[in-house]
Amino acid sequence: MTNQRKIRMAMVGGGRGSFIGRIHRMGATLDGEIELVSGAFSSDPETSRESGEDIYLGQDRVYGNFEELLEAEARLGPDDRPDFVSIVTPNDSHFPIARAALERGFHVMCDKPLTKDMKEAIALREMVRSSGLLFGLTHTYLGYPMVTQARRILASGRFGPIRKVFVEYPQGWLSVPGKRKGRNLLWKLDPERTGAGGAITDIGTHAHNLVEYVTGRHITQVCAELTTFTNAGIQDDDAAALIRLSGGANGTLVSSRICAGEINPLRIRVYGETGGIEWAQMAPNELIVRSLDAPAQTLQAGTNAEGLDPEILAMFRTPAGHPEGYIEAFANLYLQFAEAIRRFDENGARLEGSSVASIDDGVRGMAFVDAMLESANNGGSWTDIAFAED
Amino acid sequence: MTNQRKIRMAMVGGGRGSFIGRIHRMGATLDGEIELVSGAFSSDPETSRESGEDIYLGQDRVYGNFEELLEAEARLGPDDRPDFVSIVTPNDSHFPIARAALERGFHVMCDKPLTKDMKEAIALREMVRSSGLLFGLTHTYLGYPMVTQARRILASGRFGPIRKVFVEYPQGWLSVPGKRKGRNLLWKLDPERTGAGGAITDIGTHAHNLVEYVTGRHITQVCAELTTFTNAGIQDDDAAALIRLSGGANGTLVSSRICAGEINPLRIRVYGETGGIEWAQMAPNELIVRSLDAPAQTLQAGTNAEGLDPEILAMFRTPAGHPEGYIEAFANLYLQFAEAIRRFDENGARLEGSSVASIDDGVRGMAFVDAMLESANNGGSWTDIAFAED
Amino acid sequence: MTNQRKIRMAMVGGGRGSFIGRIHRMGATLDGEIELVSGAFSSDPETSRESGEDIYLGQDRVYGNFEELLEAEARLGPDDRPDFVSIVTPNDSHFPIARAALERGFHVMCDKPLTKDMKEAIALREMVRSSGLLFGLTHTYLGYPMVTQARRILASGRFGPIRKVFVEYPQGWLSVPGKRKGRNLLWKLDPERTGAGGAITDIGTHAHNLVEYVTGRHITQVCAELTTFTNAGIQDDDAAALIRLSGGANGTLVSSRICAGEINPLRIRVYGETGGIEWAQMAPNELIVRSLDAPAQTLQAGTNAEGLDPEILAMFRTPAGHPEGYIEAFANLYLQFAEAIRRFDENGARLEGSSVASIDDGVRGMAFVDAMLESANNGGSWTDIAFAED
Amino acid sequence: MTNQRKIRMAMVGGGRGSFIGRIHRMGATLDGEIELVSGAFSSDPETSRESGEDIYLGQDRVYGNFEELLEAEARLGPDDRPDFVSIVTPNDSHFPIARAALERGFHVMCDKPLTKDMKEAIALREMVRSSGLLFGLTHTYLGYPMVTQARRILASGRFGPIRKVFVEYPQGWLSVPGKRKGRNLLWKLDPERTGAGGAITDIGTHAHNLVEYVTGRHITQVCAELTTFTNAGIQDDDAAALIRLSGGANGTLVSSRICAGEINPLRIRVYGETGGIEWAQMAPNELIVRSLDAPAQTLQAGTNAEGLDPEILAMFRTPAGHPEGYIEAFANLYLQFAEAIRRFDENGARLEGSSVASIDDGVRGMAFVDAMLESANNGGSWTDIAFAED
Repeated sequence: MTNQRKIRMAMVGGGRGSFIGRIHRMGATLDGEIELVSGAFSSDPETSRESGEDIYLGQDRVYGNFEELLEAEARLGPDDRPDFVSIVTPNDSHFPIARAALERGFHVMCDKPLTKDMKEAIALREMVRSSGLLFGLTHTYLGYPMVTQARRILASGRFGPIRKVFVEYPQGWLSVPGKRKGRNLLWKLDPERTGAGGAITDIGTHAHNLVEYVTGRHITQVCAELTTFTNAGIQDDDAAALIRLSGGANGTLVSSRICAGEINPLRIRVYGETGGIEWAQMAPNELIVRSLDAPAQTLQAGTNAEGLDPEILAMFRTPAGHPEGYIEAFANLYLQFAEAIRRFDENGARLEGSSVASIDDGVRGMAFVDAMLESANNGGSWTDIAFAED
Repeated sequence: MTNQRKIRMAMVGGGRGSFIGRIHRMGATLDGEIELVSGAFSSDPETSRESGEDIYLGQDRVYGNFEELLEAEARLGPDDRPDFVSIVTPNDSHFPIARAALERGFHVMCDKPLTKDMKEAIALREMVRSSGLLFGLTHTYLGYPMVTQARRILASGRFGPIRKVFVEYPQGWLSVPGKRKGRNLLWKLDPERTGAGGAITDIGTHAHNLVEYVTGRHITQVCAELTTFTNAGIQDDDAAALIRLSGGANGTLVSSRICAGEINPLRIRVYGETGGIEWAQMAPNELIVRSLDAPAQTLQAGTNAEGLDPEILAMFRTPAGHPEGYIEAFANLYLQFAEAIRRFDENGARLEGSSVASIDDGVRGMAFVDAMLESANNGGSWTDIAFAED
Repeated sequence: MTNQRKIRMAMVGGGRGSFIGRIHRMGATLDGEIELVSGAFSSDPETSRESGEDIYLGQDRVYGNFEELLEAEARLGPDDRPDFVSIVTPNDSHFPIARAALERGFHVMCDKPLTKDMKEAIALREMVRSSGLLFGLTHTYLGYPMVTQARRILASGRFGPIRKVFVEYPQGWLSVPGKRKGRNLLWKLDPERTGAGGAITDIGTHAHNLVEYVTGRHITQVCAELTTFTNAGIQDDDAAALIRLSGGANGTLVSSRICAGEINPLRIRVYGETGGIEWAQMAPNELIVRSLDAPAQTLQAGTNAEGLDPEILAMFRTPAGHPEGYIEAFANLYLQFAEAIRRFDENGARLEGSSVASIDDGVRGMAFVDAMLESANNGGSWTDIAFAED
Repeated sequence: MTNQRKIRMAMVGGGRGSFIGRIHRMGATLDGEIELVSGAFSSDPETSRESGEDIYLGQDRVYGNFEELLEAEARLGPDDRPDFVSIVTPNDSHFPIARAALERGFHVMCDKPLTKDMKEAIALREMVRSSGLLFGLTHTYLGYPMVTQARRILASGRFGPIRKVFVEYPQGWLSVPGKRKGRNLLWKLDPERTGAGGAITDIGTHAHNLVEYVTGRHITQVCAELTTFTNAGIQDDDAAALIRLSGGANGTLVSSRICAGEINPLRIRVYGETGGIEWAQMAPNELIVRSLDAPAQTLQAGTNAEGLDPEILAMFRTPAGHPEGYIEAFANLYLQFAEAIRRFDENGARLEGSSVASIDDGVRGMAFVDAMLESANNGGSWTDIAFAED
């Protein structure tokens, strides 16, 4: 590891009052392979400055907005210049920031969903492609090792072709708006900030992405119902769909913010011909493996005697039976991104093989939202998802 | 209880090789309030005779077919005559047997689904109505006390109007036909015996019925996909639907026989505005109650300190914390049916207030199957369920 | 099965107000192989008569006390005479009733614990031995098929020699006496009825018995602490012990009535050199099997694909995934007892090979109680259990 | 927060091949309030140097042994000098390192158990007291917010006086030595490094500490059995004890490394007069609260609607329903230690009120080990734990 250096990260967003920015920072720096060197933490310069102070960042590397940051940091020499920009702002600003970062030659790690709308998504994809730079999307749940273990089991063919997928993400925090607001999440109810789609954009895209990653297939069609039970915003607060996947599988997808009393029970079950897997976000260190021929198994994180592939085993930081969680999932994504940057610098390699969602995944996520809205507007007809062949 | 006598039951079907007939008998007689007095256990007279012998029933009350049974038993005097006939044959014979039993003046308890098709269902409903007799359908899961407790919680208005329902019944035993056949269930793959619909008829009707009972609402529309993954029969072995309920709620319904590795995890979750319930058939003595304002509670069978209504508490036979199961669920239905017969004899009262499914429930179940088939055939369009207003 | 008849049972105890008597009746008759033909349901003749009426038993076979019953029924001819007597009275009357029944030539099935004290236990064992008759003790939990499956796994040697056993039975219903009384259980707090020992006699004997059955070994020594936290009686309401088993294993045993909020979570875990088992009474249809070399498995009742031995599979009455419970556990014991009686009548065979606890098991249970009391009185010294070599 | 700076940490131990050192570093730096400024990561200078390189630490602050580190770092000015030393070496070196660090005026955070033996423990306590410096012991599990929530519930008196405690820590990784070695843990089998006691020292002290923290009481007496099932070392690999607590409660304590197939299921249950709590390390974001008067509740991390105290709620970094784990538990301890240092610098305040274990806790832990060994050697007699009144 001699002569290797920490990868340098600049952050846009994530200032005082943001909860996800802090988590990105913890995840990015957990393994000591990435250091935060600069930031524009708010579009309000004073808030940005104070936010930098909060985290002991030198004021010379704290900026009043992302344009200033990118302009100044791009001029720094090779020993100081950030390797990548982490974008942790609301959806509507992902596009301009990512565009500007790529134009300055920075790799980009961006919070999900990709952009505010499909048009931006396609434009961004074009920019990423022409830039030749690395672009990662932080679909956090892909950072859980057991999710990749699930993907590997299904990909191994051990259970035959995939037939059935159930994915559900039934939150309850918006069931009575105002009652359980969460932290600084009000922008999530503002279509100006989120783009079209409410729950479907915010958490439905996680469900979509998780299905595609675990199965290795794309969702090609949806037959959807979107509902607005509350007056929290003009957007859907609940969505359900029948889904069809490439290769003949089908299933159901649920995402909701009005399942009163539920916290965050994202869950996926996938069945092949002779067995299947189940993973639940609230017990992320377990993976249930079912089989037609044998009792159900519960794989446990961190021990090779528990049926884990060596590559999965290597992802755990803690001794067997000691839980890792959400921050470690972020850390796994950032660590893989840092490693990709190192490989990129050596030989131009890409993100392939990592569990960091790509720009293509992001585009399909946006297309999924559009298809959900279209299907629901058309009374639940089967609707193609654009780019599902990508 | 003085001068009260046991209610007398005749059984049609349930001979050697039938598994459900034996369970009906155990359930019916468990509490000692019903006695089996006669039977036509098979359409093969020799099998019927041997089956009677197996259960120590006197040969004078064992018949070679249901016509003989009904004719002979109808002639018996008031101290011997059966009060009701229990029909535990494959679906296609429910109608003729029930019709004949009603014509002879017997109350009828019938295994689900109601009939082979909608036409028979409507005709049977007419006969039941004109007969003035009691007709019960053994949708077993309604016999679990915790299911009725769930219904009561939702009906109390404690959680506001119902918004969302998820019901799922993902079995796996037919995922590779021939591999895990179950016991004597091959007729369930024969459309001549089951009527239209495969999994949707066999277990989808349970899911439909459970939703309607627990919510106190009717499913009015479905948007369905039916799939045949195996060559087990010409029928669907998997179904999924978006559903809409009277009063504005909606949700999803899944029933499948190809979820490899799953055993029998029927599960229902219902959410109102401020909380909801979850019940799972494989842990039937628990009821999870979630709330926006308080931690989730796990109600336990059999103890009044655990939030159960006194009427529910009274349904349990065992001391708190000692499990009751499937046979006891049947017993609860039969016990209520026996009590209804006693009230009927006194004052003509009906099944109302019990958890035994009625002829109307049965008709709606058949209409549900038809709507699922129609919706799927029409590419997943929203399709009305007939009689949902009943 | 031709020419076979139902086994005939007389019952002593179990009248109005008794809860366990009703459960014995349901369990005994569930499979249709045993019929209740007579009873002395209470030592109060009027209550006994009314209790017989409650269950539709002809008054000619209902008696005012057990002496009358045994005398009269012993005179009946071979087509009417009971095969065995089921004793479901409080502990202090087990001995005189069992003695009288054996003297009249009846086999005996008796509720646990065996007797009021050790002296009675030894005397009863002598009587059973000299009578040549069958004597069974209803340690209910041995009736769960998964318990026998656990025993078979450990006996197979698959996990090497047994090293460690944890058994616990922490109830909470007596934590504040008077608050949650249960049903007609006050005699359980009266040393005149129960004999020495409170919780340790009532439920500690279940824990003792379960350990011995599952491991196939005897508990040879205890190092105990008994506590009386409440003024519910003069007896212990809580017990904990270090235990040693024959063959070198050791472990812990807990039984308590003051673990406030617990219902009935009897649980046993046993570990051999390379794996182990866990079974919990409140989820009796599951068996967790752990191994050093493989992920934990959850065996499910009722399906041969789930790792169950054929003999265990045959014990289930319901299709896979449909729960069986406490009454079925009783039924399994009574069914094995009825089969033993049939074999006895044919060839004098005994109870061996069944999961019905024997008179020897009962004696060891009483010796266990005595050793617990002695150890606790001696400040927790290691104390031998008498007859542990039997 | 203006003018506040990061707290500076020096580390002794935790070099290449150490797993716990890396976890301490991640935990200490997770929240960005502590920076690692120097280290002696190994007693082998070359390994120490390479280990510093691995984590991008400047070579001028990496030392060949702890003496060099303490000497050199003690001379640094107020802008560079470490605030505290984190000791993450095997047990036998805790004492000399801690002593030397205190002598140089550094606060100390030390991995558990406190020292190699009781003599060292008492001597170290004396040094800590006379130094006036802060000393924390990383009993990790106290860092889980739900553990403190459990402590608060019990301390509130809501459930009356504590009566019963069950704590268990049954690992299985050493059940067949050599088979599942874990990572670089061989020193844990070497009495020269660990001091007396095997499992009881390594994980039994965690169980002891958890009981005392959650109940707010001290374990005063034990009645123990220690067993060596394997030839892994000369030490015990399994321990069980009856325990007595101040104030009249009692219970059981289990710690083992030979429960084959178990991973790391540390679990505690505590019962008061009218209810109790249950917490399990493998599902650390849940807390089960049982009550005599109400259904069991499952409190969930991170949401104020779930019954958590505001102070507990504030400990979570992630949005409700997103798991935190072992590293976050460490981080909570280090964050509290950093805050204590800041308060100390302001007003000399101590660790009180935090969940960081103190030197007194550490001394009682060592006394517990000694009492366990003594009791077991004396054939299980009740043995006082020294300093239990402290």
